[in-house]
Amino acid sequence: MTTAGDRGPEAPALPRCPGAGETAARVRAGRESAVTACRAALQRIAGTESVIRAWCHLDGAAAEERAQAIDAAGPQGALAGVPVAVKDIIDTADMPTENGTPLDAGRRPETDATVVRRLREAGALVLGKTATTELACGAAGPTRNPHAPARTPGGSSSGSAATVAAGGVPLALGTQTAGSVVRPATFCGAWGMKPSFGAIPRTGVTRLSRTLDHVGVFAGSAADVALGIDAISGDDGLDQASTGRAPTRLAAALALPLGRPRLALIREPAWEEVEPGAAAAYEVAAAVLGAEPIVLGPDCAAAAAVHRGIMQREIAHAFAPWWERDDADTLSDTVRGHVLAGREIDADAYLDLLDAADDMRRALACALRPYDAALTPAAPGAAPEGLDFTGSRAQTMFWTLLGVPAVNVPVLELGGLPLGLQVVGAFGADATVLRAAAWCALRLQEAHR
Amino acid sequence: MTTAGDRGPEAPALPRCPGAGETAARVRAGRESAVTACRAALQRIAGTESVIRAWCHLDGAAAEERAQAIDAAGPQGALAGVPVAVKDIIDTADMPTENGTPLDAGRRPETDATVVRRLREAGALVLGKTATTELACGAAGPTRNPHAPARTPGGSSSGSAATVAAGGVPLALGTQTAGSVVRPATFCGAWGMKPSFGAIPRTGVTRLSRTLDHVGVFAGSAADVALGIDAISGDDGLDQASTGRAPTRLAAALALPLGRPRLALIREPAWEEVEPGAAAAYEVAAAVLGAEPIVLGPDCAAAAAVHRGIMQREIAHAFAPWWERDDADTLSDTVRGHVLAGREIDADAYLDLLDAADDMRRALACALRPYDAALTPAAPGAAPEGLDFTGSRAQTMFWTLLGVPAVNVPVLELGGLPLGLQVVGAFGADATVLRAAAWCALRLQEAHR
Repeated sequence: MTTAGDRGPEAPALPRCPGAGETAARVRAGRESAVTACRAALQRIAGTESVIRAWCHLDGAAAEERAQAIDAAGPQGALAGVPVAVKDIIDTADMPTENGTPLDAGRRPETDATVVRRLREAGALVLGKTATTELACGAAGPTRNPHAPARTPGGSSSGSAATVAAGGVPLALGTQTAGSVVRPATFCGAWGMKPSFGAIPRTGVTRLSRTLDHVGVFAGSAADVALGIDAISGDDGLDQASTGRAPTRLAAALALPLGRPRLALIREPAWEEVEPGAAAAYEVAAAVLGAEPIVLGPDCAAAAAVHRGIMQREIAHAFAPWWERDDADTLSDTVRGHVLAGREIDADAYLDLLDAADDMRRALACALRPYDAALTPAAPGAAPEGLDFTGSRAQTMFWTLLGVPAVNVPVLELGGLPLGLQVVGAFGADATVLRAAAWCALRLQEAHR
Repeated sequence: MTTAGDRGPEAPALPRCPGAGETAARVRAGRESAVTACRAALQRIAGTESVIRAWCHLDGAAAEERAQAIDAAGPQGALAGVPVAVKDIIDTADMPTENGTPLDAGRRPETDATVVRRLREAGALVLGKTATTELACGAAGPTRNPHAPARTPGGSSSGSAATVAAGGVPLALGTQTAGSVVRPATFCGAWGMKPSFGAIPRTGVTRLSRTLDHVGVFAGSAADVALGIDAISGDDGLDQASTGRAPTRLAAALALPLGRPRLALIREPAWEEVEPGAAAAYEVAAAVLGAEPIVLGPDCAAAAAVHRGIMQREIAHAFAPWWERDDADTLSDTVRGHVLAGREIDADAYLDLLDAADDMRRALACALRPYDAALTPAAPGAAPEGLDFTGSRAQTMFWTLLGVPAVNVPVLELGGLPLGLQVVGAFGADATVLRAAAWCALRLQEAHR
């Protein structure tokens, strides 16, 4: 196991990965086949995987067979022939789904998760499954940061973020219950977005928390984030949280001219943990982008405890099938700690936490009303050294608790390592927030010239 | 107290009440003032109130002053000058809101509930407050059934249903956590509808159950139901359950020609309690309407226990402010029973119940997919004798638990008393369900000619 101080292997050279939209357009036009796109992805991955270890299930021959089937059917759809990675807590009928725990070794779901089915319906090639921390909240997996192999890629969607950042595939699915999309995206230097709670149905995704679980995507550009979320969002009639939610139209929204958004800068809820270098980078970016500092105040002071309480109480309930097994002693201390802490929270305390979360959502909605989006740190700094600790969740859990859209914009740098700017906004304003994030990326690139 | 067997006073002659849409049109056109509409309503109420006892707060002089203010401002809006009744668990800043319990005697909220504010914005005159059972789930209030004063009007929205049925006002607000809109509507012979969960925000409505509480309306016609719900529905940024919900457009939907809907007949979840006469009436109506019998099967067998468990667990939490008072011993045995039973349900059992409800919602959504709406009993029979028991909730709690739209169509009769046909449908299909209900009413009226 790699720990802090261990230099680890050299960072590999990272290949350029063609974008999802670009690949799909070529495949639809018959200028490339799903098979060639598949082979190219496998080759890119092969060049880095021995170091990065992003994939927990990748059968090249089987993937190529699926690609042949796509070609045979005549590739169509927004993601025609695009190789995608799927976090291994998301069910796939044709590959194992092992949830990052030996307790699920060899587990093979009978049906695809809704998001996987929709990816395939959009023409995508599900290339394989990517490494997750144990049950998406416990022990770290084997994945290394593509830019600094002795450092964590972040978690829990470690493999999905790492393979996108390493140029393996242009698009990957992850999930976020505390910060598991935005955190690995900032550490690995990928675009990452979790849209509003309920925007993407979670049917077939291993549940941690009915109130906090979100599906999100990683990609190399805002445009590919949009394509990915558009393909998988909208009520599936099965996840109560998605009831009545229309599919997003993010790609169409991004295609309109980007005007300057009204931006706030929110340093809360945990500015005190942000390292001086990172704080300076965030302040400079906010100044360049013209963001107006606002203070949420006491409304978010209790957020960490509220988030932790809801998460642990719901994990204790959701993990009963693992907890009650004879071999449950293989669960990590982290998972055991969540379950044991959750079991201490009684029904009245739990309902108090749900009410407190509702109060915070109301307060945030008022505070954000004058703005299109808000800038806030994605992490207290660059990826920490070592692989065991996947990083602080303090910058991300608040936005997860609130259920609002959150985007990692991979535009900053700290000591040669990626640092993301987190762009958040009002519940349901997924398009507005992604447009603001795309504008921020363009504006900061201009400023750096 | 009136008990079964007691004949009670004679049923009063019930005046005809002009509809809400009709009144608003006259007021907007300057052919009637809010003051004259107010006076007429007060006069109609005065003729029956000594028997029916629907109102717990009605200050004629104060109401007329409010009507004068509406006239002075130039009456506008979909409900211009329309006198409406508001159940006394819904906050009003200019009148007491006493929740049907002596513990809240003299309580005066600082602000209007969202639904009350919206009624006023639509030009309505909030005439007064109507009697509710204790905390909308406990001891019955004083209200009598307008068609048979020795019988219950149903509850908990007793006064709102009774005054609409008695011709007092054309529109009234109620709430439903088990069956408190549909049940009093069927017993009193009024139109009543609770739209999909979350369609109407509950901000400023005394909470029983975060998962089950709905606001609904009573009116004399489907068109007035539509006007009322259109005026008060849509996200207010404050009730989490309404997040992202657009206002309904029921009036516009009803104005389109009514085609024959595809109708199912669902006898579940409690056909066994339906009295033979009522069962025959429902079967005949279903045959006339061409409804196709379907069976939901085991999915709804556990519904009553799931509904009761969620309701009692959440009541135990929500009622803590009353339960913890020194004078809490004035709470009825019914309310005490709910709280004590709820406190026995631990957090894991509660989360199991929420999961079971989600499973039922999924199963129902599949079963209803081929249909526009389903017919089902509104009650096991006409209003029971006596005022203490407000009637069975077994025909209504299922649809409340599922959060789907439910309409009482006051078209049947049993022994000279009103019997309603309940029309339900898919989550979010409020307009489709109300259109189906309106078609059913027209078709049954034709058949009776």
